[in-house]
Amino acid sequence: MNHRVTVDLGERSYDVRIGAGVRGELPSELSALGGPTQVAVVTSPHLRELYGDDVAARLRDAGHGAWVAEMPDGEEHKTLDTAAGLYDQFIQRRMERSSLVVALGGGVVGDVAGFVAATYMRGVRFVQMPTTLISQVDSSVGGKTAVDHPMGKNLIGAFHQPQLVLIDIATLKSLPDRQLRAGLAEVLRYAVIQSPPLFSLMEGRVAEILARDEDTLAEIVHHSVAIKARIVEQDETEAGLRGTLNYGHTFGHAVEAVAGYARFLHGEAVAIGMVCAAEMAAARGMVDRDFCERQRAVLSAAGLPTNCPDDIGASDVVEAMKLDKKVKGGRVRFIVPTEIGSVEIRDDFSDAEAIAAMEAATA
Amino acid sequence: MNHRVTVDLGERSYDVRIGAGVRGELPSELSALGGPTQVAVVTSPHLRELYGDDVAARLRDAGHGAWVAEMPDGEEHKTLDTAAGLYDQFIQRRMERSSLVVALGGGVVGDVAGFVAATYMRGVRFVQMPTTLISQVDSSVGGKTAVDHPMGKNLIGAFHQPQLVLIDIATLKSLPDRQLRAGLAEVLRYAVIQSPPLFSLMEGRVAEILARDEDTLAEIVHHSVAIKARIVEQDETEAGLRGTLNYGHTFGHAVEAVAGYARFLHGEAVAIGMVCAAEMAAARGMVDRDFCERQRAVLSAAGLPTNCPDDIGASDVVEAMKLDKKVKGGRVRFIVPTEIGSVEIRDDFSDAEAIAAMEAATA
Repeated sequence: MNHRVTVDLGERSYDVRIGAGVRGELPSELSALGGPTQVAVVTSPHLRELYGDDVAARLRDAGHGAWVAEMPDGEEHKTLDTAAGLYDQFIQRRMERSSLVVALGGGVVGDVAGFVAATYMRGVRFVQMPTTLISQVDSSVGGKTAVDHPMGKNLIGAFHQPQLVLIDIATLKSLPDRQLRAGLAEVLRYAVIQSPPLFSLMEGRVAEILARDEDTLAEIVHHSVAIKARIVEQDETEAGLRGTLNYGHTFGHAVEAVAGYARFLHGEAVAIGMVCAAEMAAARGMVDRDFCERQRAVLSAAGLPTNCPDDIGASDVVEAMKLDKKVKGGRVRFIVPTEIGSVEIRDDFSDAEAIAAMEAATA
Repeated sequence: MNHRVTVDLGERSYDVRIGAGVRGELPSELSALGGPTQVAVVTSPHLRELYGDDVAARLRDAGHGAWVAEMPDGEEHKTLDTAAGLYDQFIQRRMERSSLVVALGGGVVGDVAGFVAATYMRGVRFVQMPTTLISQVDSSVGGKTAVDHPMGKNLIGAFHQPQLVLIDIATLKSLPDRQLRAGLAEVLRYAVIQSPPLFSLMEGRVAEILARDEDTLAEIVHHSVAIKARIVEQDETEAGLRGTLNYGHTFGHAVEAVAGYARFLHGEAVAIGMVCAAEMAAARGMVDRDFCERQRAVLSAAGLPTNCPDDIGASDVVEAMKLDKKVKGGRVRFIVPTEIGSVEIRDDFSDAEAIAAMEAATA
């Protein structure tokens, strides 16, 4: 089943197309965006072999001037240096302001290629073609682009909306199990903040999802993207509401920072972060124990961690949170659940409460 | 005499204040922008001594959390590396999304600090306090920010409008003569593209200008900023009209690239570029010889070069033009005069015509 979600941002509106095989639509979609143009398909060496060369060849067949720009994948390469390597390639290939960038890959490729698209010649058009579940349901929609700084994730970036997002569910076939599961943490995050039906779907159909049933995957991606689109429409630059998307991410980012980015996948850290945020809310009585248990059960069924390893110091995690971009006036903003489908943004939790929540979530 | 120009860009509107001593208004202006905040005053070591420490101290006296972030000045430092050095300082000082950047300096400081403000945590607010004539009349207004790439100027950047521009004419007292003259090329550029009165003012009062009469300087800055503001309002991201501001810049940028950025000041290269563009238009009869002579006379009276040195190869310059951001579909866009106060954007000039124009402008 194919789906389409429109992200309505006035002049910056765009469509998200979801379905098995939709990557084949890229040449005609680009022609519809304004005729033949020079296209850089930014991807990793691995994805270049799987899809990149084929995508570029089809673009050339349709009359576009397409070539493949390689960048190394992995969070450790989400750096200004990797962006600089892309600028070099763009200039050597004489990419112009009217040229277009296709980001073909996971979140790292999308974020870096998007940042380069945002800043090359002060901004060129780009298309997201996310190939991992986590990037399909999250980073490819909404226009956030960034690279990391040694002191923190996504500290250097820009808001730059894509022209189009093509989510080919078929690319999930080649995704390692661990990455598929990590993506499910982000899907469950949407369920907790906004959607009891999506929560039930996750509870009831984990098996089909893990077996990579394409229709079920397309359905959870569609649910997730639709929620993300509505939030981005109301708060494009994260002045308020968009902050709710960070449920599980305040703890999660800090856990990643303390553990080192190689140890957890982002979604795994978010799963731990969701458990911590729920425990913190439960300790104040904002949410009941049943919520905590149901959330833990789905995360666990999806094969995600639900405990913070005890070698990760709770006070180090709290220190790391204070470097997060969401800090305002020195206060850490937490997203805490009140029931399935509803969260609040709060900045009145103390360090001690955060530490206690982490301890409650520690094995 | 003090002046004020409003740049009307809807939600991104801001004021430009022009006058001797207006830098003293920064603390109250920042309070008006939303109360005390953390402020990074980005400036060069030299300007830090002249003005930077004083500006930061006054901000602290008014209750803001101000500190000085140093960056090296000079076009050779307008790089991604210099930006990276500022990101490091911002993170060490725990600058937040709600913090504010003041760019205190010439075009290099403004462009780099503006780019860092555009990309630090996906964008923080900033104020331009330009201290050179060229940055006062040009780069501080309009939201263009950028760093250079070894292959070309301003190839990496963003559109990011400031919250306020404070143009303190008194800072021009400390400006070396050569830099003051370079700024006059940009002022004359405004005159040619839009304003016969400004052209006459430049013809009639070069002596007062070079003697740094503050009221005369404030007047030409006000004229220039008002023209720039109206153009930016109509074409914020340079889709069309804003391109006319590049009069003299297509040749000028290319001359700088070929000569190496240390040889000419930007304004000097623009002066040469204006002579070339006028010669190219005259060769087609689009403008008369009298225009060429009057323009040459004012540039010359302002102490600016009006000839391209003969060791700079015309064909190298034409090659360099093709790397310019304004190139579209491989065609170089030229801004050519039709009379004083009027120019056209054209992409139908051949390499041969450009080379002939450069030769006509060569000593």
